[in-house]
Amino acid sequence: MHPLLEKEGFIVDIDGVVGKSKTPIVEGVKAVKRLKEMGKKIIFVSNNSTRSRRILLDRLKSFGLDVTEDEILVATYATARFISKERPGAKVFTTGEKGLMEELELAGLKLVDYDVAEYLVVGSNRGINFDLMTKALRACLRGIRYVATNPDRVFPSEDGPIPGTGMIIGALYWMTGREPDVIVGKPSKVIMEEALNTLGLKSEDVAVVGDQIDVDVAAGKAIGAETLLVLTGVTTKENLQKMINRHGLRPDYVLDSLYSIFEG
Amino acid sequence: MHPLLEKEGFIVDIDGVVGKSKTPIVEGVKAVKRLKEMGKKIIFVSNNSTRSRRILLDRLKSFGLDVTEDEILVATYATARFISKERPGAKVFTTGEKGLMEELELAGLKLVDYDVAEYLVVGSNRGINFDLMTKALRACLRGIRYVATNPDRVFPSEDGPIPGTGMIIGALYWMTGREPDVIVGKPSKVIMEEALNTLGLKSEDVAVVGDQIDVDVAAGKAIGAETLLVLTGVTTKENLQKMINRHGLRPDYVLDSLYSIFEG
Repeated sequence: MHPLLEKEGFIVDIDGVVGKSKTPIVEGVKAVKRLKEMGKKIIFVSNNSTRSRRILLDRLKSFGLDVTEDEILVATYATARFISKERPGAKVFTTGEKGLMEELELAGLKLVDYDVAEYLVVGSNRGINFDLMTKALRACLRGIRYVATNPDRVFPSEDGPIPGTGMIIGALYWMTGREPDVIVGKPSKVIMEEALNTLGLKSEDVAVVGDQIDVDVAAGKAIGAETLLVLTGVTTKENLQKMINRHGLRPDYVLDSLYSIFEG
Repeated sequence: MHPLLEKEGFIVDIDGVVGKSKTPIVEGVKAVKRLKEMGKKIIFVSNNSTRSRRILLDRLKSFGLDVTEDEILVATYATARFISKERPGAKVFTTGEKGLMEELELAGLKLVDYDVAEYLVVGSNRGINFDLMTKALRACLRGIRYVATNPDRVFPSEDGPIPGTGMIIGALYWMTGREPDVIVGKPSKVIMEEALNTLGLKSEDVAVVGDQIDVDVAAGKAIGAETLLVLTGVTTKENLQKMINRHGLRPDYVLDSLYSIFEG
């Protein structure tokens, strides 16, 4: 039996583990079902900064996974929760899309313009424009607390690389010298500690599963959990050693897919 | 007589010296007229990355200045000229606006999409959007030669700070780790050497006049010319010492306006 099967809980990345965008990854889906049948606690943690929990829940259901809202932690929701714990009802200005706005409002935060905001919340936006960047720049220059949903610089979309939230973080850094006061998404501890809280488990009792060394493995190490890298996404057999060298991090386990945990 | 009046030529910034956006600065305009009457050679050098020479020429004429195209060197035009000297007829992809596109085409360069371009030309664009940033990202990742019109991070517009070309440079840097191979605009030597060539003078025979220490004074020092900082723009009596300390550069002369060169 694979040693990770002794863990009580699994913190699982979505993209590259159980699906690629809207397409399921069969081995990943099968594995999660079997882990749940064994009574393991599962929480999906995603750096997605444009989708609400509701949308990702629908996607996981379309993969054939029977999950509840409590089993999903998205950067949008985690960001809203982080701010509403720090300052309930705070006024926020965001660069983000509808999915992020939805979560901010559901958490009781008030969406306002940059000049009266108490928080700048940076998240990716496929509708980004000069006016929105000007507002983000001015919010940043005002010196208000600055929270980013996730640090991802480039996102590997189906037709090639597209800008991640890092595009806006980088633009603001270059223009103002400021980086976010808090980044919520992986590899930050913020979202990972929220995941542990939700599971009600300690870091030694969970395995962190993902397809990216600098995101998922780094996030697992940030909370001191054991990490499993699967080769169904960004990292492949071919680039594995290069990725390990580049990021200077070694996963505790590497498997072809999450289902391999039951094999061999 | 002011010692700079012994120089044969003057390299003069536009914004903050002879005008603020569309409004003339009376002392600056008067001074340039008098210098021209004395037979001094003048060239206006501007980091503007969205206007063609033609548009800035019209603006200077509206200030009452009688200038020809040869007396204006804009970052748009200088960028086009730099590339067309390096590779005549090259295929370029640009993030820039119509003014930059106009100059690139006038210089015989071919405007093409990111995937077949030999050059990535980054200039500011008030119509920037996610699609254009995606193309710039992919051009950058292709490793083609990367030229930026100017390095300005933030531009002080009439209603507050707005993003400069640096917004795009910063976003690309954060996403790819690449900075431009060549920056044309001040404080780069590229545009300043072109200015000297156009004047037909050596650096010891010209004075460089501007309102910003990190842009104009730095550009003058880059070619070893004497520099005059005027207090009709970004730098004021109040922030002068702070600006000198911040940028670690001291102008050779500081005057209230360019016209003060004739006074006292």
